[in-house]
Amino acid sequence: MIKIVEDGGVCTPLGFSSGAVSADIKGNKSGKLDLGILLSEVPCEVASTFTKNRMKAAPVIAAEKQMHDGGEFFGVLVNSGNANACTGKQGIDDYFKITSSFAHKLGLKKKSLFMSSTGVIGVRLPVDKILSKADDLLDSIDDDDILFSKAIMTTDTKPKRIAVLVETDNGIYVVGGTAKGAGMIAPSMATMLAFITTDAMVEGSILQKVLNNAVESSFNSITVDGDMSTNDTCFIFANGLSGIKIAKPEEIEKFQTAVKFVCDHLAKEIVMDGEGATKLVHIQIDNAKSYEDAKNCAFKIANSPLVKTMFFGSDPNWGRLMASIGASLIDIDPETVDIYFNDIKYVENSVLIDPSLEKDIHEIMLGREYLIRIDLKVGNHSCRVMTSDFSYDYIKINADYRS
Amino acid sequence: MIKIVEDGGVCTPLGFSSGAVSADIKGNKSGKLDLGILLSEVPCEVASTFTKNRMKAAPVIAAEKQMHDGGEFFGVLVNSGNANACTGKQGIDDYFKITSSFAHKLGLKKKSLFMSSTGVIGVRLPVDKILSKADDLLDSIDDDDILFSKAIMTTDTKPKRIAVLVETDNGIYVVGGTAKGAGMIAPSMATMLAFITTDAMVEGSILQKVLNNAVESSFNSITVDGDMSTNDTCFIFANGLSGIKIAKPEEIEKFQTAVKFVCDHLAKEIVMDGEGATKLVHIQIDNAKSYEDAKNCAFKIANSPLVKTMFFGSDPNWGRLMASIGASLIDIDPETVDIYFNDIKYVENSVLIDPSLEKDIHEIMLGREYLIRIDLKVGNHSCRVMTSDFSYDYIKINADYRS
Repeated sequence: MIKIVEDGGVCTPLGFSSGAVSADIKGNKSGKLDLGILLSEVPCEVASTFTKNRMKAAPVIAAEKQMHDGGEFFGVLVNSGNANACTGKQGIDDYFKITSSFAHKLGLKKKSLFMSSTGVIGVRLPVDKILSKADDLLDSIDDDDILFSKAIMTTDTKPKRIAVLVETDNGIYVVGGTAKGAGMIAPSMATMLAFITTDAMVEGSILQKVLNNAVESSFNSITVDGDMSTNDTCFIFANGLSGIKIAKPEEIEKFQTAVKFVCDHLAKEIVMDGEGATKLVHIQIDNAKSYEDAKNCAFKIANSPLVKTMFFGSDPNWGRLMASIGASLIDIDPETVDIYFNDIKYVENSVLIDPSLEKDIHEIMLGREYLIRIDLKVGNHSCRVMTSDFSYDYIKINADYRS
Repeated sequence: MIKIVEDGGVCTPLGFSSGAVSADIKGNKSGKLDLGILLSEVPCEVASTFTKNRMKAAPVIAAEKQMHDGGEFFGVLVNSGNANACTGKQGIDDYFKITSSFAHKLGLKKKSLFMSSTGVIGVRLPVDKILSKADDLLDSIDDDDILFSKAIMTTDTKPKRIAVLVETDNGIYVVGGTAKGAGMIAPSMATMLAFITTDAMVEGSILQKVLNNAVESSFNSITVDGDMSTNDTCFIFANGLSGIKIAKPEEIEKFQTAVKFVCDHLAKEIVMDGEGATKLVHIQIDNAKSYEDAKNCAFKIANSPLVKTMFFGSDPNWGRLMASIGASLIDIDPETVDIYFNDIKYVENSVLIDPSLEKDIHEIMLGREYLIRIDLKVGNHSCRVMTSDFSYDYIKINADYRS
């Protein structure tokens, strides 16, 4: 039903194209791609999710206003190297100056383009530099999205992209996606931007519901360092060019599966590429009293520096897991906790089963990816999140970020 | 009014003595002091605060029961190297076996001694090893508390102790204290044990109130890595041997000041000696809508890995502070935030005042200790917490802890 398109991305669905250039946004003349554009040749239905951080960046405030006001949307500009956050009213003016100017050059209405920004907080966008690159950026537009995926990266070590093809009785449609992540990936979005495209024909309210569901189990279920950024944004653009309509329940379900697949894939890539990450660990909480309890507990563990350094050291120090479960302050029975590493039960009713299992658990923890499953046995709600470890490189990357 | 006693500690108040030995509790024959005892020659009034972690260690559960049942208390045994946590009913049996045995040897009633433990979670206490060292431990008891302060250390690099002398119209009394901290220091206690002694004569309920107040602004206002341990405990023992009674409001106030001074001093020493810490940073939130808001915001910043790595790198990346303020999800006005580093105002109404100040701010951040004050300007509540940075050594210490 769903097939991964080899070397696919946001330009794989019909009618999408993209471009990227270096606008020297950081001002260090690195020549790095830092300005991208993603465009549809016809107007799109758009759905979006944004950071819940109370200190929203200008592009989030502005895009939320555009979404609220409605209109015809054709795509999104993206820059890395500068978050346009904590830039006050100036930041919002800069946003609309840039997006209107590009829209004008493309012969579109003023507010038909969005803009997303990622990078350092508190520095004004270099508006003139960006505008001076407008012609170069538009000239660079073609069907290949790899440069766009590169232009949105900050401390990411590689571009993240995927496209899937969905077969239906009425033909084929495609869902593509790209994302940037790396640090500050946390509950309620992350320092992440994600752009999803599709040539399916989907009404806005359905698109929004599908996106919300997909984001909850993907981008909202990952963490790198527990911080939540000012800029987190996920857009989905549906241009309808495949001619395939998504309206009936079974059609929506199939579309949901495809969008979820794309988001899950990108979310996993983000954690895998977390700053300094050497491990991908799935934390699953089973049989909690509520979904909120399960999620709070999973994230408490996933964000604990003591747990994350233990992952880095591949040390089966299950006591740190127990301490984190207790520190989550959710409703538990301290005497009924079981802990599994992959398929091996290591702790039963809150007590170590057999110290000699430590070797096997250590072996599992030496792997690149594994599952820790915690059965609380006090209810019937579950939640699963993905996290990475804390390594020397996490410190190095973040202590040196700007210098 | 309050004078610091040079080289003072928990044995400085009249009638307290202590001892310490190596009982090889970790089983690696390191010869490290890991078993201590603190004793009063007469029964004490006792007050205590314990971890709020839902996975309480056996010594916390047992001591809470002793406090609840009441009785005559003479002191506390302490071991490091093993937390006696996640050890089930066995752990509680072990606790009472050890404490009764020591009480018996001292000619005291069964439940007249407490016990505190700190170290690795999930491993049974080596009861026989501990009991076999009983005579050695009791033989080691004298008026010097430095060995006791050393015996309670885990990853601490140095013992933490203080004593203050309080002059009153009726004579002099003393408050002494010692603590261990290092990792997992967080809101609602920390991986910390603290023992306070005094020869003042204080009724139990007053003692408890005074301790609660002192702990809130000291041990509950510090963080090293945001984790909360299974074992956090603070005891205060008042044996009354100075003959000075604390009952009238002005007497209580003076006593409160002394206990708070001791707790504040130990809390600061704990953060200063945080695992891998190279900085002590005070985070003060002013003019929040409520005390809870101020505290949540201060701790969100104090626990943010991105902020803590920025402290390590002495990088004036104020955007990370803004992102953390927003991520705390408290009620703010995103446009009214002022940020000061010591006395220099760096951000006004959420915007950088002058980029050229960066050099001065960097200079401040190169220091060992500084204050970041954040004025939210939306209310009139304040809170101040202490935190440390995240360094390479934090990762090293915690990835290697058990191996």
